[in-house]
Amino acid sequence: MKLKLTEIDGSIIAPQGFKAAGVFCDIKRIGTGAGSEKGAKLDLALIVSEKPASAAGMFTTNQVCAAPVKVCVPRVKKGRAQAIVINSGNANACTGKQGFKDALEMVRFTEQALNLPQGSALVGSTGRIGLGLPMDNVRAGIVEAAVGLGSTTEHAARAAEAIMTSDTRRKEIAVEFQLGGKTVLMGGICKGAGMIQPGMSASGARPAARSLHATMLCFITTDAAIASRALQRALTEAVAGSFNRITVDGDMSTNDTVLVLANGVAGNPALGAARRGRGRGSNDLQVFQGALNHVCLHLAKSIVHDGEGVSRFVTVRVKGAKSSTDADAAARAVANSALVKTSWHGGDPNWGRIIDALGYSPAAIIEEKVDLGYSAPGSRDILWSLRHGQPTRATFKALCAAVVAKEFDLHINLNLGSGSALIYAADLTEEYVAFNKGDVSDPTSLGG
Amino acid sequence: MKLKLTEIDGSIIAPQGFKAAGVFCDIKRIGTGAGSEKGAKLDLALIVSEKPASAAGMFTTNQVCAAPVKVCVPRVKKGRAQAIVINSGNANACTGKQGFKDALEMVRFTEQALNLPQGSALVGSTGRIGLGLPMDNVRAGIVEAAVGLGSTTEHAARAAEAIMTSDTRRKEIAVEFQLGGKTVLMGGICKGAGMIQPGMSASGARPAARSLHATMLCFITTDAAIASRALQRALTEAVAGSFNRITVDGDMSTNDTVLVLANGVAGNPALGAARRGRGRGSNDLQVFQGALNHVCLHLAKSIVHDGEGVSRFVTVRVKGAKSSTDADAAARAVANSALVKTSWHGGDPNWGRIIDALGYSPAAIIEEKVDLGYSAPGSRDILWSLRHGQPTRATFKALCAAVVAKEFDLHINLNLGSGSALIYAADLTEEYVAFNKGDVSDPTSLGG
Repeated sequence: MKLKLTEIDGSIIAPQGFKAAGVFCDIKRIGTGAGSEKGAKLDLALIVSEKPASAAGMFTTNQVCAAPVKVCVPRVKKGRAQAIVINSGNANACTGKQGFKDALEMVRFTEQALNLPQGSALVGSTGRIGLGLPMDNVRAGIVEAAVGLGSTTEHAARAAEAIMTSDTRRKEIAVEFQLGGKTVLMGGICKGAGMIQPGMSASGARPAARSLHATMLCFITTDAAIASRALQRALTEAVAGSFNRITVDGDMSTNDTVLVLANGVAGNPALGAARRGRGRGSNDLQVFQGALNHVCLHLAKSIVHDGEGVSRFVTVRVKGAKSSTDADAAARAVANSALVKTSWHGGDPNWGRIIDALGYSPAAIIEEKVDLGYSAPGSRDILWSLRHGQPTRATFKALCAAVVAKEFDLHINLNLGSGSALIYAADLTEEYVAFNKGDVSDPTSLGG
Repeated sequence: MKLKLTEIDGSIIAPQGFKAAGVFCDIKRIGTGAGSEKGAKLDLALIVSEKPASAAGMFTTNQVCAAPVKVCVPRVKKGRAQAIVINSGNANACTGKQGFKDALEMVRFTEQALNLPQGSALVGSTGRIGLGLPMDNVRAGIVEAAVGLGSTTEHAARAAEAIMTSDTRRKEIAVEFQLGGKTVLMGGICKGAGMIQPGMSASGARPAARSLHATMLCFITTDAAIASRALQRALTEAVAGSFNRITVDGDMSTNDTVLVLANGVAGNPALGAARRGRGRGSNDLQVFQGALNHVCLHLAKSIVHDGEGVSRFVTVRVKGAKSSTDADAAARAVANSALVKTSWHGGDPNWGRIIDALGYSPAAIIEEKVDLGYSAPGSRDILWSLRHGQPTRATFKALCAAVVAKEFDLHINLNLGSGSALIYAADLTEEYVAFNKGDVSDPTSLGG
């Protein structure tokens, strides 16, 4: 089945029946206690559907999870929502009982401001951990955003900007596709930059025997009609292949959240409501899944491209592992190795560091079996550096040319089985360190 | 029992009956193929006992292990050796069958040059992975070193210098203590700097269900009389509390090795030969263990202090974990978090990043139970930043003063059980990145 998607403008307001707003209510300045205003970026966003929508979400599996996550998980489980309020500049994580009350107050105040029933608003936060939210500012921001809601591209852009922290640019996408004879629209915005190696699940519960390690926030809207359980299944699959495949610095955040609202205004025959089968409904679900996968993957990759200090984007492709768990572990060991990441920064095709990381990863590997090579993104034209653990005749110059590209694929074949995995990774630069060491004399410079 | 140790000069030649040498045989230049010589550091060391000695060793548990490790493991198992040859500038790792032959040739040629029986030499290598050793240079170096052997402090210093790679200074120690009425001496040298998170075992086999992540090399000499099995037990315990507790960048090397030679020249009643009991032998073993622990810990810490780009030394002390495995995992998650390490570099007491790392570690934690504080090294006067997950009244200024120190202890109490662990860690600096990205136009700049 070939998926026909057309990319369009407007991100989250592209789908019918959605409005958005982004405002400045001074959370960053107050939150950090600094005296002077720096840039005065927008810091509160509101996304609202004109009708109640099916809702689904994926949340950090960090044992320390932020108050907005605690508030969202049970609400998303009910499968219905109509509004999302998001602040940047303060993560509302590790803020105790007051933090939980503040997150609840954010959704309640949003519901009141929008005249929505109780339980219909969701919340997301990002920023520094451990600081209390300046709730007077937050309430003023919600009122201003509610008054300013609109459905122009400019409204969506302001919402996308309001969720940014160390991001250098907005991350947004919208697509149009056909579903059950109707034109359906789907849009999304996200933020990332640091503390990025998401490992999300629908309940926030940790997958068994798995150690995952981001704040990334993503909000998706669609006018498709789809039952909430089908929407959750689709989102779980889309996140597994996108946000849960990225790493910037290997640190999993307390706040990672992806939320989707599907308001059904497009009028397609509702997905997931019909009986299972290979008929029309099943095919339509595949189309919807394809669109959601596309939106999530585009946004997930944009987080790595705009990661803190990132200068190179590397897709680590492992195959031939004993199991998919092994493949994932091998790819993450390479993608998170400080020595591999610094060599990428230097454009140094240092396969010794890569095979070293494979060797200490939990994945089974046999040195004499490992193939290692490079290609352009998505290309099968691979320049092999190692074959069966032995250097090939590829010259140092040719290998340097492969890894000096701003974006390349690293191919690893362990030749031990059929397990495969890929991870979207980035280099480690002086800029990352300089940004994250902050400046304690200026607390506004201190990141999450 | 109080251990009386006197630190003295001379490192590995302090014990009676040992000689050493360090020479330059141009391995680094040849190894990297670069045209111009840079600094011409010494690159081959020899350590020789005048009598056959008890031998013990600990080796990397990386599945990809270097040829010298493969040669040493079975030799050390036999429990006797008399010489150690070490080269820097080339790891002889991932060098296939030729690499194994070259490592064997190094020990055989050393035995011939010193007129020692077959099987009595051990070998260590460190440097870039994946390059063939320039064996003509290595043989010339061994001959020169054998001729130049001596037992002055200068000889030991040259050996300590010859094993350095990115180290900025020699790492050496020697101690004197009393054992069975005799004066016994013990000395050691080591190197480290990058690719440092050793996880060594006596056989090179991986401990079950454990993922560990240095090239570090360490060579210890003593004139104590001790049976090889007792020596191996003592070394295993000493390494568990020292080299296996350090991390610079979280990358475990293919070459990590600790070797000890005990030649018995001091004439103490041989340790480990007597029946077990609480008598003299057992007490003497404790004294020996104490000395070996002291030597290993001093050298292990010196590796972190001189780690690539390191500006701060942090001892992460976790207690109250559900198990010691949990405590170790929690300490390593914090010690290897890019965000925690960059905040240390900036002197930023960002507890949010620390609790985030605890949350994604495999260790069980409950946010509301975590205590987190700082002290001067080894002090029990702790400035608490968090108590039961809540910020204390400690001011930002006071916390900054604690973490701006060049060396401090980070205390974490999970308050869930009795498991404890400590890890000697370092910050992550722009210098680390700049050094490790290398300069591909000058391959001599490219590290291991």
